[in-house]
Amino acid sequence: MSLVVVGTVAFDAIETPFGKTDKIIGGAATYSGTAASYFTKDIKLVSVVGDDFPKEQIEQFHRHGMKTEGLQVKNGQKTFFWSGRYHTDMNTRDTLDTQLNVLLDFDPVIPESYQDCEFLMLSNLMPSLQKNVLDRLRKRPKLVVMDTMNFWMETQMDALMEIIGLVDVLTVNDSEARQLTNEYSLVKAAQKILKMGPKYLIIKKGEHGALLFNEDQVFFAPALPLEDVFDPTGAGDTFAGGFIGYIAQTKDISFDNMKRAIIFGSAMASFCVEKFGLERLVDLKQDEIEERVQEFIDLVQFDIALV
Amino acid sequence: MSLVVVGTVAFDAIETPFGKTDKIIGGAATYSGTAASYFTKDIKLVSVVGDDFPKEQIEQFHRHGMKTEGLQVKNGQKTFFWSGRYHTDMNTRDTLDTQLNVLLDFDPVIPESYQDCEFLMLSNLMPSLQKNVLDRLRKRPKLVVMDTMNFWMETQMDALMEIIGLVDVLTVNDSEARQLTNEYSLVKAAQKILKMGPKYLIIKKGEHGALLFNEDQVFFAPALPLEDVFDPTGAGDTFAGGFIGYIAQTKDISFDNMKRAIIFGSAMASFCVEKFGLERLVDLKQDEIEERVQEFIDLVQFDIALV
Repeated sequence: MSLVVVGTVAFDAIETPFGKTDKIIGGAATYSGTAASYFTKDIKLVSVVGDDFPKEQIEQFHRHGMKTEGLQVKNGQKTFFWSGRYHTDMNTRDTLDTQLNVLLDFDPVIPESYQDCEFLMLSNLMPSLQKNVLDRLRKRPKLVVMDTMNFWMETQMDALMEIIGLVDVLTVNDSEARQLTNEYSLVKAAQKILKMGPKYLIIKKGEHGALLFNEDQVFFAPALPLEDVFDPTGAGDTFAGGFIGYIAQTKDISFDNMKRAIIFGSAMASFCVEKFGLERLVDLKQDEIEERVQEFIDLVQFDIALV
Repeated sequence: MSLVVVGTVAFDAIETPFGKTDKIIGGAATYSGTAASYFTKDIKLVSVVGDDFPKEQIEQFHRHGMKTEGLQVKNGQKTFFWSGRYHTDMNTRDTLDTQLNVLLDFDPVIPESYQDCEFLMLSNLMPSLQKNVLDRLRKRPKLVVMDTMNFWMETQMDALMEIIGLVDVLTVNDSEARQLTNEYSLVKAAQKILKMGPKYLIIKKGEHGALLFNEDQVFFAPALPLEDVFDPTGAGDTFAGGFIGYIAQTKDISFDNMKRAIIFGSAMASFCVEKFGLERLVDLKQDEIEERVQEFIDLVQFDIALV
């Protein structure tokens, strides 16, 4: 009855208008798994790192309830490294360096103990590898959530379309939704994407919130207006991790529960951006999360009685 | 106990990716007044046109409950004309032509019958003229709402700051809030603007909704995800008109009622963009407005029970 999280575990070096970091821990699965760990303690990681990856970080994964039997450590190889610089708007960034390293020949291994997986988070990764993982699970999970990015639309569209056709929930940002469909209107883009396979689509709009679509319903979750967005790295992965973590905790895949899950995911993402990297996410208190969710409730609450 | 609406009454020529118009009726006060007319029938217009302005349009104002004693018609002069072309994103536009015409020496006249005014909408206009109108009302209205635009920030900042210091509610869009304060964070921008005088600030974010701030509260109203935005001209004015119209109808200037007013304003704006110019706004049914407001309620409704 577990949640399997597949994706990158990485080193990042980040520059924002507020400062810059040396190599810090990053990666889509790192953020997704850590966020999910506040909702369920049965998380199983599938990823790969080199032998330069710190043991302390793997111990931190364990403290957060993440099993790492499916985290391959490649001797003599280096961990995936990404470096980027954010612009003032924090919505756009330049990639300064990408060293794929261990990702180059990553072949995901699904340990036997992962096969009971009930929920699957396919965090951003090569689409063919996302499909491999789904193929290698003997039983279809109750809910498969997939995140991706524009890079795969530009380089591996066929493989991307194949895995998109197989998942239950796709999460993309607004510009990716437009790129994937050649539609400027997000409503039209959503209609097209839902025809590609997913039953649910989440369009992430960063500081402008997120939209959840299914065939005949739409839900809008706001983002919390923040004084400062310090570092947006991992916010989308954190959002997705909070989303599927909440669903794994509640075991309810109805549209109404997905709405709640999006609010919890948004709350987790709002913490993520307050400090560099994982810093704000590693020792959150349950109280803090509930207070933050309450802020979301208060933010959009209004009371209109129509006759 | 009336609502006075001050602002431009104009001719517009509009190009969007969906088509183009000849000269059609436009102007901030036209949109604001028309939107407000669905909530209160005691609207008094202050503006100026030339003798080229069609009598039929003035009759339409009357049918919508707008008094036009304060609408000056200048013989031998031409009505203000603006022409613009929208880009694909519908958020940015190029001004193709601006002919100020009668606006050049507009001196607002407040008829005696307007002096009982309870609510005042200062739609976008030269800041000095907005201040003139406020000065010429012998009794301070219960609520003064002001809209403005980036052009005045670039050309008449001192006069703009003077009138901003005198109003209760300021409405600007997100880029204008940033320009006015040199703050990228909208939360910080809002804090600065609230120190300039207004007790309430509404930051309009177009397709991303709107934020309402006062000193210690914030409310977020979504925008309805639309299949197509056909023509955004006048959407902000329509929003403001719906907002103050609803407040004039309910005579309640509490923060909670402003939240409702923003939802009604957003609903009116969502109609405005569906067709060119005023077309969609001139014969709305009460049922349609309520259905649209219900869509806003459904869009953001979620139910989280925190322990």
